[in-house]
Amino acid sequence: MARTREQNIEKVKSILADSLEHAKPLLKRLHPSDIARILEEISPDSRRKIVRMLPVELASEAISEMDYEANPEEILSTLSPERAAQIIEELDPDDAADLLSQLPSHELRLIMERISEEEEQIITSLMAYDEDTAGGIMTSEVLKLPAFLTKRQAIDAVVEISEEMEDFYAIYIIDDDDKLLGVVPLKRLIQAKPWIKVGELVLENLVKVHHQTDQEKVAKIMKEYNLAALPVVGDEGELLGRVTFDDVIDVFEEESTEDMLKLAGVSEDESLRGGWANAVKSRLPWLLINLCTASTAGFVISRFANTLDQMVIIASFMPIVAGVAGNGATQALAVTIRRIATDGILSRQYLSVITKELLVGFINGVLLGLVVGGIAWSLNANPMLGLVVTLAMIGNLLIAGFAGSAIPLLLQRLGVDPAVASSILMTAFTDILGYTLLLGLGTALLL
Amino acid sequence: MARTREQNIEKVKSILADSLEHAKPLLKRLHPSDIARILEEISPDSRRKIVRMLPVELASEAISEMDYEANPEEILSTLSPERAAQIIEELDPDDAADLLSQLPSHELRLIMERISEEEEQIITSLMAYDEDTAGGIMTSEVLKLPAFLTKRQAIDAVVEISEEMEDFYAIYIIDDDDKLLGVVPLKRLIQAKPWIKVGELVLENLVKVHHQTDQEKVAKIMKEYNLAALPVVGDEGELLGRVTFDDVIDVFEEESTEDMLKLAGVSEDESLRGGWANAVKSRLPWLLINLCTASTAGFVISRFANTLDQMVIIASFMPIVAGVAGNGATQALAVTIRRIATDGILSRQYLSVITKELLVGFINGVLLGLVVGGIAWSLNANPMLGLVVTLAMIGNLLIAGFAGSAIPLLLQRLGVDPAVASSILMTAFTDILGYTLLLGLGTALLL
Repeated sequence: MARTREQNIEKVKSILADSLEHAKPLLKRLHPSDIARILEEISPDSRRKIVRMLPVELASEAISEMDYEANPEEILSTLSPERAAQIIEELDPDDAADLLSQLPSHELRLIMERISEEEEQIITSLMAYDEDTAGGIMTSEVLKLPAFLTKRQAIDAVVEISEEMEDFYAIYIIDDDDKLLGVVPLKRLIQAKPWIKVGELVLENLVKVHHQTDQEKVAKIMKEYNLAALPVVGDEGELLGRVTFDDVIDVFEEESTEDMLKLAGVSEDESLRGGWANAVKSRLPWLLINLCTASTAGFVISRFANTLDQMVIIASFMPIVAGVAGNGATQALAVTIRRIATDGILSRQYLSVITKELLVGFINGVLLGLVVGGIAWSLNANPMLGLVVTLAMIGNLLIAGFAGSAIPLLLQRLGVDPAVASSILMTAFTDILGYTLLLGLGTALLL
Repeated sequence: MARTREQNIEKVKSILADSLEHAKPLLKRLHPSDIARILEEISPDSRRKIVRMLPVELASEAISEMDYEANPEEILSTLSPERAAQIIEELDPDDAADLLSQLPSHELRLIMERISEEEEQIITSLMAYDEDTAGGIMTSEVLKLPAFLTKRQAIDAVVEISEEMEDFYAIYIIDDDDKLLGVVPLKRLIQAKPWIKVGELVLENLVKVHHQTDQEKVAKIMKEYNLAALPVVGDEGELLGRVTFDDVIDVFEEESTEDMLKLAGVSEDESLRGGWANAVKSRLPWLLINLCTASTAGFVISRFANTLDQMVIIASFMPIVAGVAGNGATQALAVTIRRIATDGILSRQYLSVITKELLVGFINGVLLGLVVGGIAWSLNANPMLGLVVTLAMIGNLLIAGFAGSAIPLLLQRLGVDPAVASSILMTAFTDILGYTLLLGLGTALLL
């Protein structure tokens, strides 16, 4: 399946390179997602030509499927405001709001002037929500019905209302003030007897979120309760919209990318497909921090110049003691951050998490310390050197286990995203303390 | 919403601690996901008591919502085989197969003997699929209908068949040999005129996967096409089951966790909530590899003992040059791996990805190299030392950019999971080459 799909895309792209006109019938047969993939990869000029060539519905579906990193909003800028407005009208309001919020204000105004007042109002209200909240990722297209309708009336209403809607999985029951009373999954509606009132079909547990709920929390709730759609309400409990599973998959991917990049010392602003300037801007600050911490480590070494002078062999063990513990800390950090991100860690579990990491650090420290210490001893016929290396290794892996678990937990406790504790900060810890341990013990025991 | 929920859980847990009998009415009012959360956190003995106390349907729903890391299958072992069989019969077949495949074979046999033959057959066939494939995550409960039914007949059939089913979002149209012909979303079915044949309602683009398709690929397809459910077929195109969005959210989370842990040098077998023994076993091999690579770096240093002896100041710059480039490589690696995991990188994009990382490495190298070189110069009144440090920094960040992008791409090309290129291997590269550069240049230019 997938191979054929990629082949199709490649075929259309090669035909596109020759002649846009020839590609037209082929393009129209592709899935909007596949057209999106093509749009992502071609020049702005070809994008504009293709979008002008396609029927409005297909063009808008394809644009809505584009990765936001490929800047789909730029396509709108290249079109006439009339054409852009037609595409915006076809889009789901949440996608329209996302796209429009990326446009410069004068272009936004030109398009907004050309869409229906009703649509404009919906989009404007969606644009007001904070991007990373339930309000920011919801769509305002919901199927809402009063509780007193019978199943038969409800189905008639659904058929009428839902003509222009994207997929839906449930209907929402509201009172006169639009307050959300309950959810009826489509499955229940279909199975009900014709004369049953829809108000009687609602699920026992009403799961909903406030529009200000953080998108990460929204994603967790939908995952936990296995929901294809989650209703979003306002301050008075009034139904504002719904978040669907596809938005939530994007949230999971976004948050995982962020956590992984932060762990590696890459700012969350970096776009995976961004250019070199974006990358330099995102990474240089972290490397500068690293420069400072590494300089501190270098300074520690320079304080022990005398020791190194008298016993240069100890320098060979510096990268081992510092490096292995640095990685031990990164291991503990990754496990802790990921555990916080997926299941969460409760306050009363802090102690057991840290104890476990200390124990792991100790065991790994003893095992690796004995190996390295043994090598140090045998290579240099100096048992004391072996002892120094072994002790430094154990101590530094204990520090690694502690820092790798306690620091993210502390950050979580302080309400800071624990993922800001990157491996760069961890290795700073283990570098500085590792050199101090190794060279300090060396000074005390070897000179 | 969420706070109330956590409060509820805590309340039930504190009542549970006093008296199981008192907690019973409260438990029955909780959402199965909330009961699952409680089951995850209590002792095996309390688990058994609660599961015996709950109605079978609620118990099975709660067990199916438990995190697999909390070993829900252990609950089955503590129950009588009769009770366990009742719970298995209530579960969705895919969840039942997952649980049962974790049990020792004699317990499995005891339970299997007690469930209906039909159910046993379904579960056994599901257990035969590879865990990480579409077959392994699909459920065999599907709504399949012949194309010639009218909408009205189809709805009657749906109502009849779907009584015991979990949520569904589409019906599948099959021919006489069970071959999948098309998909009709519930929305389309509801909106259709009563006399229309369901065969005419199928979506134009039939998206399906073979049961051997890797779960990561399945997740990508469902994300790309925004599907709540994806049909799974066998060799002859026969409909075997469907994967639903909730399974796919789990896959995304699982794969992200794996990638993040691998980046940090943690084996994918490590369970986030596992004990210290599991952690030591998963991390020690990577630290041992790190020990070898760090020893190689140490060996490089020892080859330059003469240089260090004559110019001990250069030792202070070793952690800076090696450390900053190590982190630069980890940054490039994280971005590249994450990009491969989310959007994928095509062969013809390899060159541009590597070029970008080389450019980023060069710019960061020049900027940071000038800073460190300037410091080296001014602190030691030795311009040549400054030059050595600057050149080593630039060279090592170029190496970092190259290794961080080229190695995961090479692995992808070779069909190996690019995420095995951990930061441990990256820093080995930049350590060894960084020391060689710094000390080699120092020997050439300073002595």
